[in-house]
Amino acid sequence: MSHNSFGHLFRVTTWGESHGPAIGCVIDGCPPGIALSEADIQPYLDKRRPGQSSFTTQRQEPDQVRIMSGVFEGMTTGTPIGLMVDNVDQRSKDYSNIARSFRPGHADLTYHLKYGIRDYRGGGRSSARETAMRVAAGAVARKVLGSEVVIRGAMVQMGAHRIEPSRWDWRAVDENAFFCPDAQTAVAWEQELLQIRKDGSSIGAVCEIVAEHVPAGLGAPIYGKLDADLAAAMMSINAVKGVEIGDGFAAAMLRGEDNADEMRLDADGGIEFLSNHAGGILGGISSGQPVVVRFAVKPTSSILIARRSVDEAGAETEVSTKGRHDPCVGIRAVPVGEAMMACVLADHLLRDRAQNGQRAR
Amino acid sequence: MSHNSFGHLFRVTTWGESHGPAIGCVIDGCPPGIALSEADIQPYLDKRRPGQSSFTTQRQEPDQVRIMSGVFEGMTTGTPIGLMVDNVDQRSKDYSNIARSFRPGHADLTYHLKYGIRDYRGGGRSSARETAMRVAAGAVARKVLGSEVVIRGAMVQMGAHRIEPSRWDWRAVDENAFFCPDAQTAVAWEQELLQIRKDGSSIGAVCEIVAEHVPAGLGAPIYGKLDADLAAAMMSINAVKGVEIGDGFAAAMLRGEDNADEMRLDADGGIEFLSNHAGGILGGISSGQPVVVRFAVKPTSSILIARRSVDEAGAETEVSTKGRHDPCVGIRAVPVGEAMMACVLADHLLRDRAQNGQRAR
Amino acid sequence: MSHNSFGHLFRVTTWGESHGPAIGCVIDGCPPGIALSEADIQPYLDKRRPGQSSFTTQRQEPDQVRIMSGVFEGMTTGTPIGLMVDNVDQRSKDYSNIARSFRPGHADLTYHLKYGIRDYRGGGRSSARETAMRVAAGAVARKVLGSEVVIRGAMVQMGAHRIEPSRWDWRAVDENAFFCPDAQTAVAWEQELLQIRKDGSSIGAVCEIVAEHVPAGLGAPIYGKLDADLAAAMMSINAVKGVEIGDGFAAAMLRGEDNADEMRLDADGGIEFLSNHAGGILGGISSGQPVVVRFAVKPTSSILIARRSVDEAGAETEVSTKGRHDPCVGIRAVPVGEAMMACVLADHLLRDRAQNGQRAR
Amino acid sequence: MSHNSFGHLFRVTTWGESHGPAIGCVIDGCPPGIALSEADIQPYLDKRRPGQSSFTTQRQEPDQVRIMSGVFEGMTTGTPIGLMVDNVDQRSKDYSNIARSFRPGHADLTYHLKYGIRDYRGGGRSSARETAMRVAAGAVARKVLGSEVVIRGAMVQMGAHRIEPSRWDWRAVDENAFFCPDAQTAVAWEQELLQIRKDGSSIGAVCEIVAEHVPAGLGAPIYGKLDADLAAAMMSINAVKGVEIGDGFAAAMLRGEDNADEMRLDADGGIEFLSNHAGGILGGISSGQPVVVRFAVKPTSSILIARRSVDEAGAETEVSTKGRHDPCVGIRAVPVGEAMMACVLADHLLRDRAQNGQRAR
Repeated sequence: MSHNSFGHLFRVTTWGESHGPAIGCVIDGCPPGIALSEADIQPYLDKRRPGQSSFTTQRQEPDQVRIMSGVFEGMTTGTPIGLMVDNVDQRSKDYSNIARSFRPGHADLTYHLKYGIRDYRGGGRSSARETAMRVAAGAVARKVLGSEVVIRGAMVQMGAHRIEPSRWDWRAVDENAFFCPDAQTAVAWEQELLQIRKDGSSIGAVCEIVAEHVPAGLGAPIYGKLDADLAAAMMSINAVKGVEIGDGFAAAMLRGEDNADEMRLDADGGIEFLSNHAGGILGGISSGQPVVVRFAVKPTSSILIARRSVDEAGAETEVSTKGRHDPCVGIRAVPVGEAMMACVLADHLLRDRAQNGQRAR
Repeated sequence: MSHNSFGHLFRVTTWGESHGPAIGCVIDGCPPGIALSEADIQPYLDKRRPGQSSFTTQRQEPDQVRIMSGVFEGMTTGTPIGLMVDNVDQRSKDYSNIARSFRPGHADLTYHLKYGIRDYRGGGRSSARETAMRVAAGAVARKVLGSEVVIRGAMVQMGAHRIEPSRWDWRAVDENAFFCPDAQTAVAWEQELLQIRKDGSSIGAVCEIVAEHVPAGLGAPIYGKLDADLAAAMMSINAVKGVEIGDGFAAAMLRGEDNADEMRLDADGGIEFLSNHAGGILGGISSGQPVVVRFAVKPTSSILIARRSVDEAGAETEVSTKGRHDPCVGIRAVPVGEAMMACVLADHLLRDRAQNGQRAR
Repeated sequence: MSHNSFGHLFRVTTWGESHGPAIGCVIDGCPPGIALSEADIQPYLDKRRPGQSSFTTQRQEPDQVRIMSGVFEGMTTGTPIGLMVDNVDQRSKDYSNIARSFRPGHADLTYHLKYGIRDYRGGGRSSARETAMRVAAGAVARKVLGSEVVIRGAMVQMGAHRIEPSRWDWRAVDENAFFCPDAQTAVAWEQELLQIRKDGSSIGAVCEIVAEHVPAGLGAPIYGKLDADLAAAMMSINAVKGVEIGDGFAAAMLRGEDNADEMRLDADGGIEFLSNHAGGILGGISSGQPVVVRFAVKPTSSILIARRSVDEAGAETEVSTKGRHDPCVGIRAVPVGEAMMACVLADHLLRDRAQNGQRAR
Repeated sequence: MSHNSFGHLFRVTTWGESHGPAIGCVIDGCPPGIALSEADIQPYLDKRRPGQSSFTTQRQEPDQVRIMSGVFEGMTTGTPIGLMVDNVDQRSKDYSNIARSFRPGHADLTYHLKYGIRDYRGGGRSSARETAMRVAAGAVARKVLGSEVVIRGAMVQMGAHRIEPSRWDWRAVDENAFFCPDAQTAVAWEQELLQIRKDGSSIGAVCEIVAEHVPAGLGAPIYGKLDADLAAAMMSINAVKGVEIGDGFAAAMLRGEDNADEMRLDADGGIEFLSNHAGGILGGISSGQPVVVRFAVKPTSSILIARRSVDEAGAETEVSTKGRHDPCVGIRAVPVGEAMMACVLADHLLRDRAQNGQRAR
C-alpha cells in the first residue's frame, strides 16, 4: 500500500503538515557505504525553498535538513535514513475564510469529503510543503544513482508561452527565477507574472525533466514499467494534471515510420539512435537514451479573486484566498520533478539489480 | 513490488505470452458474495477481440474466458479468482526478420538489453495480447463497483484529427469500428486508415475514458493519489506515451479564476459544480464529478515500411515487419483503458473502506 | 498486501480450490537465463503427492505440472512463470455432513464467519491441496538459489515420540513413508499410525527443515528479518501451530554463556562456529551457518470420531468426517516446509542483491 | 517490501539507532476521527522504559513521545502520524571492545557481513531501543481496535521455571518487576536473576500475549493468515527464537479428538467453545475466541562472561561485554509483544473492512 510511501526498493515515506512542528521522511532500502551528509541534500532544498523571489510564496523557511538516522561516520549503513526539517514560519494568520469553506479547485473539499476532518492551516497535508521531503529524498537518490546520471529540469511553458526548442540553453536555467532555459523568455515571463500577481490571480505551466546517461534495462515489462512509475511520480506532485514521456501527445499525430527511433552503430560499435521520440523508454524499460518527461501544472486555486463555493455547513459562499501563495506553482515544481525522477530511477536501479544482478562481495 | 501485479486491495496479477499455450490472471482481494460468471466477463473480451474489422490485427482469437477459481455456485467467495484464456491462433509464421533484429521503437531492444533473452514470437510478453487479461479483470472490477458507476471510453483523435466536443455522441461509439463518438468522423477515419494500412504504415491516437457516478472520497492525499494511480494505469498500456486528467495540458494555459470549478448547491442541497476542469479529482481524491482521463497512443512500431536498425550480433540492418498488426492500436486501447479505470476505482473503493469504513455484518 | 501472494522479489501468488478444475501459481521476479523445465519441478510434486502410502489421503492425483509462461527455449525470460496442475480426482462424494456444519478445529467455521460463503467441497481453498503450488514454486526457488544451497526436511516427532538426535541419519529420510531420519523409529511410527487410522483419529507432528550453505548476509535488521519471514512462511502451512529457529523454545532455558555460539578461525581463516544454537540467523540475518527451522503440526480436524459442533442454521450438532484424509498431515508438510524455506531464501537472495549487489552485465 | 515497515493497512515504519539524536516512526493508514494525544501513548512507553528496576538495563531514558503530524485538534486526520522520542542517555562510553569484535550470538557479526559497516554504539539499529517505537505504535493500534479488545501480556517462564497455569493471576502482573502473573514465583525469580546478574550472565524467558474480544473474521486464508502475521511480528522482536499459537508445540502430541475445540450454543444462541487449543485462530482467521501467542526469548548475548570470538581484522579474540544490559530481555519484551499483537490486529481489522466492509458515511 502506498498512502504516503513511494517506491519499492528505494522507498520513501513522508510525514508532516504545513503548520505542524516539522516535516520529515524515512528512506528505506538505501544501499550501505554511500558517503552522505546534510551538505549533499541542502543545495537541493535551497533550490526549492520559497521566498527567494517575488514569484513564489513569501513564507520564510530556512529548510535546514537534519539526518536523524542511517548514517554513521559519514556513510550510509543500509538502515533507514530519517530526515527532518523544522517548520519555522507558521504565521498565526487568520484562517477563518478557508477553515470552513472550500477553495474551488482545491483539496479542501475532497479531504473533507473523505476524512470529515482536515488541518486547514496552510493546507495541512495537502500543502506543497510536503515536497520539501521529496527533494531531500531525491538528493539521496542521486547519490545512489552516482554522478554519471545527470538529472536536470526546466520550466518550458508558462500560460500559453512555450519555449522554442531552438532557444533552449541549459545554462540559462539557473540564472533566472523561473528555471527557464531561455534568458529572453524569462524576461517576458517576469513581466507577465508580475501582472498576474497584481491581479490576484495565478497561472499554469509545463515543466520538463531530462535524465541523461541512464543505464539501459531499468524498468519492467508490464505494471512495473519505468514510464508508468514516472507518470505516477509526476502526477503525484501537487497541481499536476498531465504527464508525457518523449513526444507524448504529439506522438498521437505521427505515422509509424516517423515515430520510429532508427538505430545505427556508433564508432565504438554501440547503438546510436537517430532520434528520441520515445523519450528513452521502450516497452517500459530504459533504452540508454535520455529519459524525457514533461508535466502540466495547473494554476494554483488559492487566489485573491473571489470564486463561488460552498461551506461545511452546506451554505453557498464566495471564497477569496489571502495569505502567501505561489502565483505560478510550476516554478517550484521543477526541483520537485527532478527529485521524483531521481527517486524513480534509483528504485528501478535497485530493482534491476535484484533480478539481473549479483552480490558484490 | 509490482512487476506483473496491479492494484493493492483489488490486486490483479497477469501471466502469459503471445504464443504460449494460454494467458491468465489472478484477482486477489475481490469481496465475497458478488454474483459472477463467465457471461459477465465475455462481452468485454469480445469488444477488445482482434479480427473484428479490417482496422485491427487479423489474428483470430475466440478469447473464451474460463473462471478457474474463486467462484462457487455463481458467487465470489473472497478467495483468488483465477481467469484463463487459451491462445488459439499462434500462427507458425516465419519470425526470422525480428528474432535477432530489433524493431525501431519496439520493446524488442529493451527486453534484450534487460534480460538477454526474449520470446520474440508475436512480441512475447510485450504483445498487446496481455491486455485481454486486463479487460477480463476490469469486468470483475465493474461488478465490485456496482452498476451505478458507469465507465465508458472513446477514441477521440486519430492522427491529427480530433473530435469536436460539440459532435460527441456516446451512442455512436458502439456503431463504428473506431469507438468514435461521432459517426461522421468515423467515416473519414475509415478512409484514412485504409490508406495508412495500404501504405504499410500505422498511426497514433488519443483515447478518453470517463467514469460517472464515482463516489466522492476515493484516493489518498500524497502517493496513493487516485490520479497518480490512473496515470500509472494508463501509461502501463502498450504504446501509451501521455496521460491527462481533466483539462490536462490545457490547464497549463489557464489562469486560476478560469480553472477553478466553482460550486453552488443543487435543488437537494448537494454540491453542484459549474465546470469540471479538474476531471473529477482534487488533491488526489475524487470529488463526485465524472472522472475524466485521456491518453495518447503512439503508432505501432510493427510496420511494413523498412526502418534502419541493428541486430543482436551488433550489425546494422533494416527491419520491415510483416505479420498481422494493428494499423492503429489506439482502437483496441479503448476497452483496455476502460478496464484499467475500473480496476483503479475498485482498488480505491476497497482502500477507502479500509480507512473509512466499517464491517458490514 | 498478501492475501494470496508470498515473498517480495521472488513473489509467488497461488490460486485454486480443492475441487475446481485446476490449481496454479504465478512466480513473479524470477531472474532470467535460468534453465527450467517441468522435469525440474515434477520430482518435488511427486514427493508431496497424496496416495503414495496408507498414511496419507487416498485421493489419487497425478499432479502433473505444466509451465504456462515465462520460459522460452528452456530458459526463464524474467517474465512471470505461470504453473498449473489439473485437479483430476474430485470424487463426487456426499458432502452433506460438512456443507452446513463446521468441523471443530477446522477453517470451515472461520471462512463462514469471514465471508458468509465457502466452497465446502474438499475444504475448498482451505484444503492442503494448495500446498502443491508451494512445492512447485519451491522447485523454481531452488534453481534461483543454485545447487550449492542444500535444503532438506524430516519429520522429527509424531505424537509424543521424538527422534533422538544421536539416531538422525539423512539417508533414512527417503526410505520410509514418514520422511523419518531414523529407520527404526519409522517402524514404530508405522504401527502407531495404523492404529490411529483404525481408530478414526489423527495425530500431530513436528517437522524440521535445514538449509545448508546459505550465504551470509540474507535478511534485514528489523521487519524484513529472515527468521520473521521463515516464521510467517511455516506458520502459513495448513495446521502449523508453532515455529522455532535453532534452539527455539529451549533457548528460553539457557544462560547467556551457554547460548553464545562461540567463534574461532578455520584453517582457511574463515569463521568457524563452535555451536549453532542460533539456527544460522543472528539479528534477522543469516550468518553462514545452517539455517534450522522446526514447526509443529496439529492433528487434522477431519476425523471419523464424532465431535460436538454447531451448524450454519445455528443449531447444535455432531460432526464426524468421513472422506479421505491424512491421519498425520505432518508427513506431507515436510516437502511443503522445504519449499517454503527455498522460497524465503530465494526472496532474500534477490533482496540482498538489490541493496548490496551490482548489475551483472 | 518491508525492511523497516510493518503491516499493510495499519503500516508502521520505524527509524533510528541507539545512539542517534532520536528514534521515530510513521504510522500510515490510521483511520481519521480517532481521539489521540501523547497521553494515550506515554503509559505504554513508561511500561517498557528501562531503568525501572535492577533487572533491566540502567540506561536512563525518559522516553517522552511527541506527535509530530497526523493529529489536529486532538483527532487523527487520516494522514500519516509521525512519532518521535529523543535519545537522552547516550553515554559516551568506551566501545573499543565491541567496535571491531563480534559478540558471539549477536547481530554485530551479521550486520558486518551484510553491510560492511555498522553503528556499533549501543548496538546501533540492532538495539532493543527500536522497540520503543513499536510500543508507541501499538498504543495507537489499541485506539483503532477500540477499548473492547483487551490485550495483555505476561512473562510465563524464566529459565527453566514456568508458571503453573493454576497460579495465573492477571492482577499480579503489574505488581512485580517481571510482569509475572504469580506473585510467589516473582519472588523466586527475583532471587535467581540477582544471582545471574552478579555472575555477569543472562537468562532466557517465555512471554505470553492474550487478546480478548477480538472480532471473528480477522485474517485471510493463505499467506495473509492472522497467525502467520503474528508469528512474523513476534519473531521480529529482538532475541525471539520461537513462536506458538494456542497449544503450539504441545499440539504435536495430541490426537484429533483431543485437539478439536468442540462447540455448543450459549444462552444467547451464540457459539460457545468448550476449549481453546487453537488459540483463537482457525485456518488463519480469528474465531472470536481469545487469541493466544507465546514466544521464546533467548538470553542476551551481551554478557560479562568472556566468550571466544573473532574480530573484523580476522583474528581470534575474546569478548566480554561491559556496559548496561538487560540480564533478562524477556521482561521488557512483554509490552513489546502486546504492541505487536495490537498492530497486527489493527492491520487485519482494516484489511477485513476493505474486503468485507462498507463505507461509513
